[in-house]
Amino acid sequence: MEFRYSNKVKQMKPSIIRELLKQMSDPQLISFAGGNPAADSFPADAIRKFSDELLATDPVGMLQYSVTEGYGPLRKAARDYANRQWPVVSDADDLIITSGSQQIIEFMTKLLCNEGDVIAVEEPAFLGAYNSMCSFGARLAGVPLEADGVNLEALEQVFRDQKPKFFYCIPNFQNPTGYTTSLEKRKAICELAVRYGVPVLEDDPYGALRISGEAIPPIKHFDTTGAVVYAGSFSKVLCPGMRLAFCAGQPDLIGKMVVAKQGSDVHTNVWAQRVCERILTQTDMDAHLARLQDIYRDKANYMMAEMDAKLAGRMTYIKPEGGMFIWATLPEAVDTDAFVKKCLEHKLAVVPGSAFYTTDAPCRSVRLNFSTPSKEQIAQGVEIMDKVLRELGA
Amino acid sequence: MEFRYSNKVKQMKPSIIRELLKQMSDPQLISFAGGNPAADSFPADAIRKFSDELLATDPVGMLQYSVTEGYGPLRKAARDYANRQWPVVSDADDLIITSGSQQIIEFMTKLLCNEGDVIAVEEPAFLGAYNSMCSFGARLAGVPLEADGVNLEALEQVFRDQKPKFFYCIPNFQNPTGYTTSLEKRKAICELAVRYGVPVLEDDPYGALRISGEAIPPIKHFDTTGAVVYAGSFSKVLCPGMRLAFCAGQPDLIGKMVVAKQGSDVHTNVWAQRVCERILTQTDMDAHLARLQDIYRDKANYMMAEMDAKLAGRMTYIKPEGGMFIWATLPEAVDTDAFVKKCLEHKLAVVPGSAFYTTDAPCRSVRLNFSTPSKEQIAQGVEIMDKVLRELGA
Repeated sequence: MEFRYSNKVKQMKPSIIRELLKQMSDPQLISFAGGNPAADSFPADAIRKFSDELLATDPVGMLQYSVTEGYGPLRKAARDYANRQWPVVSDADDLIITSGSQQIIEFMTKLLCNEGDVIAVEEPAFLGAYNSMCSFGARLAGVPLEADGVNLEALEQVFRDQKPKFFYCIPNFQNPTGYTTSLEKRKAICELAVRYGVPVLEDDPYGALRISGEAIPPIKHFDTTGAVVYAGSFSKVLCPGMRLAFCAGQPDLIGKMVVAKQGSDVHTNVWAQRVCERILTQTDMDAHLARLQDIYRDKANYMMAEMDAKLAGRMTYIKPEGGMFIWATLPEAVDTDAFVKKCLEHKLAVVPGSAFYTTDAPCRSVRLNFSTPSKEQIAQGVEIMDKVLRELGA
Repeated sequence: MEFRYSNKVKQMKPSIIRELLKQMSDPQLISFAGGNPAADSFPADAIRKFSDELLATDPVGMLQYSVTEGYGPLRKAARDYANRQWPVVSDADDLIITSGSQQIIEFMTKLLCNEGDVIAVEEPAFLGAYNSMCSFGARLAGVPLEADGVNLEALEQVFRDQKPKFFYCIPNFQNPTGYTTSLEKRKAICELAVRYGVPVLEDDPYGALRISGEAIPPIKHFDTTGAVVYAGSFSKVLCPGMRLAFCAGQPDLIGKMVVAKQGSDVHTNVWAQRVCERILTQTDMDAHLARLQDIYRDKANYMMAEMDAKLAGRMTYIKPEGGMFIWATLPEAVDTDAFVKKCLEHKLAVVPGSAFYTTDAPCRSVRLNFSTPSKEQIAQGVEIMDKVLRELGA
């Protein structure tokens, strides 16, 4: 039968990266393309221990239907976790547990956007966000991202001229660039949001993964008006397979997210919520996060050292202070698509920067992930990039 | 800050039942209002065993990101499960694992409906489906449900005159009525769907929970055209806290669901998928389902016997052949809202039938759940209904 699809379907496109990764069954292939946390970063022993304890002592509580807004003690623990360095989630805020932070982006779009409404986004930005937004018929207004955050003049112009329904940003170690928004720009974004009445969705999946420089409070920390909505995730600090995130913001918005979630997946997997709550409250999270930072610092520094030794002058990048990605730029003479294609022929996957743009403008950058590959694979991958650049005359 | 919400928000309303249940912290309260599986129906020991084994032997596979369409071996096991009695999912079909079957209703609506498009629904029908559909601006065309399935003339008229994007139904032990669609009507629905080009979303969460009468193949079994999309769930046969369901249908539709899911929650919790696959493939599911049927037969028969003994002539119902609900009708002289309110004063929660209608027409029925309360609670609840009916002069 021919199905009569909605207009929304026309705006949905499969994630290039997820489609790419699906085809990577070749065990020889080295991937700098994904965004998976390091396999040795998961607190697997603690998860197993708490899981077994809880399934033994409270099987019904672990397996029965639960409330849509999330398991109460986890909502409290997530609040404390978000506030561990600075006040982020205030007493005036409400908080919902979601099935990953992708769901937060979807709910924000569904709750705020009619077809044709504008969302302001960093450009380049997280591909998964673009796709979710476009699937509701929203139009994206890209705001150029600089090494210290979005261009403020451009942001103000978009706020003033296009009246976007919200502004989406990743201030810490942004995906795909690894850039961190400066303290000054965070304050300025908050100020512009309030002045123009444009809410900010601050997505902070990587904030705990700082490997150098000084930590900066989230934009939400500076907001007293309810303009900023904060999305935190446990995918990168515990594990992604659990699908656990949380969203904090003013109660009327969070209340509407609860209703949206009732119609979407009723509630988030209870096992994951219960185990996560135990880990947050009964393990030394500071020590765990320090261990993650060590793992990622080691890998990032290794990748940068290899690139500096073998690709200096041919691939440039701004050193990320955390997260999982290096945004590397090719020489003008090198065609990015040819580079990506030749890397794949040599069994290295990287993502072309154009995938992260709202427009089809040419892009000389590629996104390199350092969290997933081993150090051996990092060295091999950099060697392949060296070889490919030579083949392309650079 | 004042958020500028989308038009969709105006059509979202919180589930009356979930809101009601949230307020039921009173441990004295007896609930016939929910739809929770019996607490002793969960295969808790098997879940704990497989969970621990898998977390010990393959922690990374259990905790890392996974593919959007679902864990491959679970997709195969779900297909075999769906086909255990009759061919339901054919070789021509594709299958996706979802975070509960609520998500399937949401994806069908998102993929097929623009604002203002019509969805045909049984009336009365599952409240959670209505809410999900309305949240995308779909209009509902209710088709009167009879004890043996929808009124076919009314269904044909809606198909012909309103060209709905799809027809949503629960042929086995429907929620809220407990009614089962007859073999003849199943074939006729399939035939009408093909003739008028209207896809059918066949939701079958309760099919395995038959307690009397002869099993009937799903509508999907009779379809050779791809018109019927089949939604199966593990919430009622394993446990709901896992949030696991599956949807089978023609590959172009399922492929679009995968893209929708990428933008929604990326993939379903991996732990749940892996544990479920083990249970389906390594335990005696037939014995497990037989045990569930015994539990529910016992409870349903007990509730009906108590009602027959104490409420005969004052509350009427059609005996359900499975599922979790009895749809009981009050005498004409009794006001349903007053009955529900007085029951709550006596610490018994029941759901007024009007909650399951697309219109505000008066309804003399209430939905009684027999899967959650204990037999002692069932007896007490029926006594309360008896007392309330007397108080209301019936």
